[in-house]
Amino acid sequence: MSTQEDTQNCVFIGKKPNKNYVFAVQTQAQSHNEIFIKARGKSISHAVDVALIVTHRFLTDWEIKDMQAITEEIKSKETDKIDRVSTLTITIRKNG
Amino acid sequence: MSTQEDTQNCVFIGKKPNKNYVFAVQTQAQSHNEIFIKARGKSISHAVDVALIVTHRFLTDWEIKDMQAITEEIKSKETDKIDRVSTLTITIRKNG
Repeated sequence: MSTQEDTQNCVFIGKKPNKNYVFAVQTQAQSHNEIFIKARGKSISHAVDVALIVTHRFLTDWEIKDMQAITEEIKSKETDKIDRVSTLTITIRKNG
Repeated sequence: MSTQEDTQNCVFIGKKPNKNYVFAVQTQAQSHNEIFIKARGKSISHAVDVALIVTHRFLTDWEIKDMQAITEEIKSKETDKIDRVSTLTITIRKNG
C-alpha cells in the first residue's frame, strides 16, 4: 500500500446525511483495514452515529478501536479572533 | 467511598450551556478521582467540548482516559416505534 493510499483512509463528517458517510466508509473498507472517521464541532455526534451504524450493520467484522478528542484553534480571517473547536477522530479497524 | 457515592460520579450532558456542566464536573472532582461524562444524540459534541474544556483549563492534572460509544434503543411511548440513539461515555481521571 503506497503512502498516498494511506492518507486516503480518512472520512471527514460534514453536514450531509449520515448515509453518505456510511457509504464513504464502506468504499474505503474495500481497500483499507483501518479507517479514521473525523469530525469537528457539531458534526461530532454524527461521526459517532456513522461509526456505530457502520460497525453494527454493514461491516460487522469491524470494531471501534479508538477515539481521540483534541482542541483545534482556528483563526477567523475576518476578525483575527482565535476560535477553539473540538475535533474527534474515531478509528475503526477490521478484526483479525 | 460508599456505593451510593460511586454512582454519583457521572455528569449527564443536556441542553444547558457548557459552562454549567464544566462546573458540575469540577464539583464532582472534589470527591472523586474518576468521572463519567455521558451524552446522547446531538449532545455528544457538547460532552466532548466539556471534557476538553475541563481537562485543558480547569483540572489540568486530569486526562481523558477512555471513550465508549454504544447504541441505545428507545421505545417511543406514543408510536411504539423503536428509535436508536448513539450514546457516548467519556471517562476522565485524575493522574497519579
